[in-house]
Amino acid sequence: MLENLAQVLDWFGLVVFATTGALTASRNQMDIFGFALLATVTGIGGGTIRDVLLGRLPIFWVQDPTYLMVCVGVACILFFTAHIPQSRIRLLLWLDAIGLSLFAVGGAKLALGLDIHPFIAIIMGVITGTFGGIIRDILGGEKPVVLSQEIYVSAALLAAVVFVVLQSFNVSADWSLALGFIAGFAVRATALVWHWSLPRYQPRSRS
Amino acid sequence: MLENLAQVLDWFGLVVFATTGALTASRNQMDIFGFALLATVTGIGGGTIRDVLLGRLPIFWVQDPTYLMVCVGVACILFFTAHIPQSRIRLLLWLDAIGLSLFAVGGAKLALGLDIHPFIAIIMGVITGTFGGIIRDILGGEKPVVLSQEIYVSAALLAAVVFVVLQSFNVSADWSLALGFIAGFAVRATALVWHWSLPRYQPRSRS
Amino acid sequence: MLENLAQVLDWFGLVVFATTGALTASRNQMDIFGFALLATVTGIGGGTIRDVLLGRLPIFWVQDPTYLMVCVGVACILFFTAHIPQSRIRLLLWLDAIGLSLFAVGGAKLALGLDIHPFIAIIMGVITGTFGGIIRDILGGEKPVVLSQEIYVSAALLAAVVFVVLQSFNVSADWSLALGFIAGFAVRATALVWHWSLPRYQPRSRS
Repeated sequence: MLENLAQVLDWFGLVVFATTGALTASRNQMDIFGFALLATVTGIGGGTIRDVLLGRLPIFWVQDPTYLMVCVGVACILFFTAHIPQSRIRLLLWLDAIGLSLFAVGGAKLALGLDIHPFIAIIMGVITGTFGGIIRDILGGEKPVVLSQEIYVSAALLAAVVFVVLQSFNVSADWSLALGFIAGFAVRATALVWHWSLPRYQPRSRS
Repeated sequence: MLENLAQVLDWFGLVVFATTGALTASRNQMDIFGFALLATVTGIGGGTIRDVLLGRLPIFWVQDPTYLMVCVGVACILFFTAHIPQSRIRLLLWLDAIGLSLFAVGGAKLALGLDIHPFIAIIMGVITGTFGGIIRDILGGEKPVVLSQEIYVSAALLAAVVFVVLQSFNVSADWSLALGFIAGFAVRATALVWHWSLPRYQPRSRS
Repeated sequence: MLENLAQVLDWFGLVVFATTGALTASRNQMDIFGFALLATVTGIGGGTIRDVLLGRLPIFWVQDPTYLMVCVGVACILFFTAHIPQSRIRLLLWLDAIGLSLFAVGGAKLALGLDIHPFIAIIMGVITGTFGGIIRDILGGEKPVVLSQEIYVSAALLAAVVFVVLQSFNVSADWSLALGFIAGFAVRATALVWHWSLPRYQPRSRS
């Protein structure tokens, strides 16, 4: 199951995103099945949308139930431990940053292996990285983090772009994954710490 | 069209869920096309997501327009009769409980027939039972019933588990469907009457 | 790329809907990647859902990146020009009306070419016309225009019905498209100007 770095990162991303889903459930004071539902849709949501768009059906987790079992396991653990972190919203944002970057490079790698235009592979990376969190926030009734003031989508984009560009220069897959992840995470982390944001649209006098 | 119990329950579930969609439309004072839209997405939403994930495309209702026509018919009837029930929100919750349990066993039965891991068949039952209502509540601007205080996802889960377990003991399909439905509905009904809920995540002093 | 009227209208609808997505981003004061995300999901959202339901996978824009590039281009232009229109919400509603009618006839045409029941072809037109805007409004945190007081879904329905009926009388594709578009847009435009609405569900004394 863990033959190479790509798979290690994939499972790590799953655990991290499932954790953010469970933390959202804890902020909504849900029961354990609510935890399981939110952990699962967050963990597998981005990859599911990516695979539907690519026509890779039936979906990966229908063929291998391990993915769902990991999400449910994470939900059970968090149900009893979510009170430990000092600030669940900060933890959620940081784990989300890790999952975002991991899934962005992982999704781009998967798409690139399908003989697809590199631009589309990058978009698939962004979708894999961001849509799990979007579904989590809509179901959990929170303001979607994708609309947050800080740099978000662009971190996923950077991770996917770095990966695809490095691959086009024949850099090894492991190095491309690692550097893409680091680039995306570094940008998102900096944004979280210093509240970095890109120039935003400024309404002028007229509305 | 109605060869056996499974199909009778399936159409009954469709009518019941379409009715809850139309009731949500009435609570939003929509016009008749809003009724038709909400009745349709609620009636076929769960099964549509299930079939996309399983790769059963084109979707069942593309091949047989009867499903959509039933939903539209329900919407038209409700547009003129939604004022009759004493409390539309209570009626909605009770019909939703019936649809939830019916679609949970029906979805599990369909998935189990596809040579799929039983755990995934259970999840497909839960998806079929719950996602129509989730879409209804998001489109209708209501707090998703899936986030309600009372037992909800777990009722769908119980219905699907009972069905799959009984099937694994070679109980007949009809009995498995009936007992699964009764188990899920009984739990959800009890939760509605006595406001039963599972232990919820309790925030400790830190937030 | 632009062999006939159907394709011209399709690309025009894409630009128009992408613009409404970018305008929603401007109302949320997003950064340029937020503009790109909302422009893209609005521009291709309806067609994507239609193609998933029909099983036309991988999705059209995976095979031809031009669609995404157009949406991103529109987002970039709007990021610097969104302040020019006197009222962005009015412009958004009018462009949405154009896109709604264009995509409704275009979606119905595509579905009708697949040897599908005409009723389903009409529904596919409605889905293509309305779901991009629904996703835009949910992601952008705005009240879905589909729930607006004025005639909306029915305009898309009328456009698709006119197209399908004219086609069944062997009217040429171009004329059917043009007349379907005009019918849908005229109704929606009238509704916008005079706040036309269909009779809405009226709650009686009981609730």
